[in-house]
Parts: sequence; C-alpha cells; structure tokens
Amino acid sequence: MNNIMVTGGAGFIGAYLCEALLNEGKTVICVDNLQRGNENNIKDFLKNPNFFFIRQDVSDQKAVEKILVDYKIDFVYHMAANTDLWESMNNPEIEHLNTFLTTKALVNAMKATGVKNMFFASTSAIYGEQTGEGFREDDQLYPISYYGAAKMAGEAYIYAFAHMNDFNVLIFRFSNIIGGKMTHGVIRDFILRLNQQPDHLDVRGDGYQTKPYCHVTELIRAIMLLSNKTKGIEIYNVGATTCTTVRYIADSVVREMGLSGIPIHYENQSIGWKGDVAHYEYNVDKIKALGWTTEMNSNETVDRTVRELVSELKDIQTN
Amino acid sequence: MNNIMVTGGAGFIGAYLCEALLNEGKTVICVDNLQRGNENNIKDFLKNPNFFFIRQDVSDQKAVEKILVDYKIDFVYHMAANTDLWESMNNPEIEHLNTFLTTKALVNAMKATGVKNMFFASTSAIYGEQTGEGFREDDQLYPISYYGAAKMAGEAYIYAFAHMNDFNVLIFRFSNIIGGKMTHGVIRDFILRLNQQPDHLDVRGDGYQTKPYCHVTELIRAIMLLSNKTKGIEIYNVGATTCTTVRYIADSVVREMGLSGIPIHYENQSIGWKGDVAHYEYNVDKIKALGWTTEMNSNETVDRTVRELVSELKDIQTN
Repeated sequence: MNNIMVTGGAGFIGAYLCEALLNEGKTVICVDNLQRGNENNIKDFLKNPNFFFIRQDVSDQKAVEKILVDYKIDFVYHMAANTDLWESMNNPEIEHLNTFLTTKALVNAMKATGVKNMFFASTSAIYGEQTGEGFREDDQLYPISYYGAAKMAGEAYIYAFAHMNDFNVLIFRFSNIIGGKMTHGVIRDFILRLNQQPDHLDVRGDGYQTKPYCHVTELIRAIMLLSNKTKGIEIYNVGATTCTTVRYIADSVVREMGLSGIPIHYENQSIGWKGDVAHYEYNVDKIKALGWTTEMNSNETVDRTVRELVSELKDIQTN
Repeated sequence: MNNIMVTGGAGFIGAYLCEALLNEGKTVICVDNLQRGNENNIKDFLKNPNFFFIRQDVSDQKAVEKILVDYKIDFVYHMAANTDLWESMNNPEIEHLNTFLTTKALVNAMKATGVKNMFFASTSAIYGEQTGEGFREDDQLYPISYYGAAKMAGEAYIYAFAHMNDFNVLIFRFSNIIGGKMTHGVIRDFILRLNQQPDHLDVRGDGYQTKPYCHVTELIRAIMLLSNKTKGIEIYNVGATTCTTVRYIADSVVREMGLSGIPIHYENQSIGWKGDVAHYEYNVDKIKALGWTTEMNSNETVDRTVRELVSELKDIQTN
C-alpha cells in the first residue's frame, strides 16, 4: 500500500492523517472540496514531493474514478463529511450531500476501478441515545441526528459493496475527537465567543452533559496501527472511556484565557439541543484487546486541546 | 386516520394493502410509477370513489409534498421499492434510486408538510448472513445485498427524521412474503420457465437453501392490527418461523402444473448467487406477543401461492 487517497484530507482529522502517512514514506493524494477543510492545514505538506492536493468534491463519482486511476491508488481513507451538526440540524440536505453521497460515490468509484481497500471514518452518533452500559460494536444502531443517520447509511452501502466486490474495509466509529486545528465544537465556540466578549460565557444546556473526549493524535495512532491488517470488514469503536462535563470545559477555557472569575451562565434544560446526545459511555474493549489505549484521560485531553486552540485562535475575532 | 397514501400501491404487497384499507372505509391515494407495479393489480379499485391512483415516482420530493397537501394525507404506507434483487445485483443504482431515494424524498416531504405518521416496509435482508439463532429486532444490521443496504439506509434516515420531527413510525422487517400477484421470486420464475419449456427445470444452487415463506394475506393482517397504535418508532420482524427448501418449491410447482416426473437439475454450489442469503431463521417473538401469528406454515404457504400463480400465469409465455 503506497499510493493513498485521503478524502477530506484538508480537514481537522484528515490533515493529521496526511502528516502521519507522509512520515511513513507514503505517497498521499489529498482530495478535499475545502468546504470544511482548510488550506492552512496542509500548507506545510505542499512542498513534500510525495504529497498531492486536488480540490474536488468527493460526491462526484466520475472525478473520483479518474483520481483513483491516474494516481494508481491502492488504499483510500474516507474522512470527508459534514462536521457541523448544528448546521445540519436545520438543513439535513447538508448531511445527505457531504456525508452520505460522498460515501456512495466513493464505493461506486472503487467498484468501477477495482480499488479494494478502504478506511471509513464512522461515528459514535450512529448508536443514538442509550442509558446504562457503554455502546459496543454489535449494539443496535439508532441514530437520532441527521449526521448519525448519514453515517449509518454510509456504513450500509459499504457493507454491501464490500461483500459484493471483495473490499477490505476498516471502520472506526469515532467518539468526540478533539485537538488543535479542529474546525467545530464546544471548545472552539467558547474561545471564539470569549475572544469577542470576554466578560461572560453563555452555555447551551445545564453544563452537565458529559462526553468522552479523545485527542486526535491518539486516534491517528490507532488508525496507523490497524489500517493495513484488515481482511473483509472490521468495525471498531475508538475513543476515550473517561468523560468530561461541559462545566469542566468552560472552566478550562476561562482559566487558560486568563479570565478566571467571569460569570458562566447555564440553561435549565438537561440537553444541549434536539439531536444532540446528552450522556453516554463508550466501550472500546475490542480495539484495546489489540494493544491500543489512550495515554491521556478525557480531562487531560480537554486541557491540552484548550491550550492548542487558545494559541491558534488568539487573533480571531469572529466564528 | 382517514386519508391514506400508499406508495408502491400498485405493486404486489401494496395492492393487497390498498384493498384492506378500502375494506375498512379509508380513502386511499395510491402512488406508483408503475415500474414494478402493475395497473392490473388496482383496476378493480378504480371504480371505488374512495380510491385515487396517481402515477408518480416517489423519489420526486416536491411532487410527493403536493400529494400530501392536496389530499390532506394523515398516514403514509411506504411500500415503494425495487423488488428485483437479481437485477440490482448487477446495477446497484436501481436500489439507490427506487429503494433509498424514495424513502429519503418521503421523509423530507413529510417534514416539509407536517405529516407525522408512517409505515415502512423494511426487510429481513437488512440483517445479512448469520448462522445459529434467528434474527431478532435488536440484532446487528449487516446487509450483504444492495437491496438490504438501501433499506438499512432508509431506516437510518427514518430514525433521525422521526426523532427530529416527532413522527410516529411502524417498521416491519418482512421476510419472504409470497402470494398471488407477486412480480418476482423463485416460484414465479419456475412457473414461467416451465410454461416455455415444460420438459425440465434448471435450479440455481443445490436446492437446499431454506427460507421462511409467509403469505401476503397474513402480513396484511399484521399491518392492519398495528398501524394506528404506534407512538415514536416501533420495529417488528414479520414472517414465518418455519422454512421451506427450494427443492420443496420445485416439486410443488412441477406437481401443480401436472408435470410430475420431469427432471429437475440442481447445481453443486450451496448458494444461489452472491448477495443471496442461503440459510436463515427468523425470530418474530416480538409481534407474536401482541397476538399475531401465521395461520399457515411455510410449506402450506408455498403450496397456496403455487396454486394462485399457476392459475394467474397459465397463459404467459415469457418473463
């Protein structure tokens, strides 16, 4: 596996993945429509003779087929998707176009060109709401957001195309991956709002929502560990097993920005917004059994990401 | 619930459903593109003042919205889908257009017009291959055919749209529904081939594939029992619990056609074709607990369907 296509390679996680692949000596073809991705994320790679950037929407099957053939691709990392769940809550078509139709076009293009190996960035949002035990890979899928639904639809197509065309597919269902360069999420929102109005912070929900946060560098380590070992279809949950509350995040951001003592206002309702999953745990026993585990707990991951993002965003005044 | 839209209402199962709804005094708006459906199936209903037929592809969201509004629809039975798995095996786009995009257009149209109640015809093919215990509703979904994948993608969108827009959705995952008027399937194939060449019968696979066959009239009884009682999303497996082999079907067809004694040839391989599920059992305990059960076993269902189809198809010389 030497010629590798990374869809969404200019996005948050995609850019870290491109870097890791280049460091292993691979030839990396980064395909991104730059709708969510950002040229800044890949500008350091452009001088590397093994890195190629193609501005292209992955939902165009014929264009993807041409790239697969022209660059003799033998492995595809499919990271392209919508990442702003808040936006798609009001406009589900965004998820259909960017999250589902990119996946549909890619598996059809692989079928047409004979490319057999892929990695798919799926999501914990595919499981939906659940109380009690942590989600396991064989649990019922029951997405309640348009994002989770589009990823589940993508998995459905991948299963059938993989079976019918002998693809090898590694699927990771990510849970709340954070870190420097991220383009969305609560940490970034808090920092940008405090950049503009440093005298207080308004928080959606009561602040007791808890999620397991995992640093992007830990995820990339897991991807690099397993990418070339899959035969058939393998599915793994990947994420932190410890959790962090929104209140911890707010305190961490305020402290890192030197604003300790300003008022932080919470709402009385117990959920951030409809389609958001308020509380859940995550079971990553399957991938742990293969030797991967996080080195930072969820709170440490939040603190590190807050430091990275406060530094990156310090001069930005609008979202 | 009085004004009811049935998508795919001119199809095999859809036409039985229209009849049952008319018998209950409902106003039925049958929407069908007549690609798989057949005007013959609904010609007896056309003189009924409560029955309206609209030739329309359900994947056209704006057209569906207009029907929902014009006819003041308050309940939708979504039966429209591709039904020929053999055809879509070679052209997955057929499933995408007819099975998935019809569902996507419908839930978007319901969201846009405020219609809140639907029934979705899903499938046992959503579970894929599995040995051992019968499939249960909370089992992992792992479709291996393009048809199963498109139905799973449809369920994914339904979950999120239902959650975000307060739909009430009854989902039945059918398993091998057969009966008079059916437009595809092994019984019909055998009869049509014997109509043309009554001297022998060639069978795909070794004939030991077993499936649980349920008569369409038993399914309709289950639909009518539960349609108006759903709050939120409810999912039920519906089908027979006993099974029938392809060899039993071949013998039944040959006997009913008065051809006993002709040679029946089987292949040496143990599966009909790639994407077909060779052996499985089906768990319908959940709906049985509500008082529904089949009155005929699988072999009796096959024999009745053979009688119905041999009579219907006796003058047809080509498929």
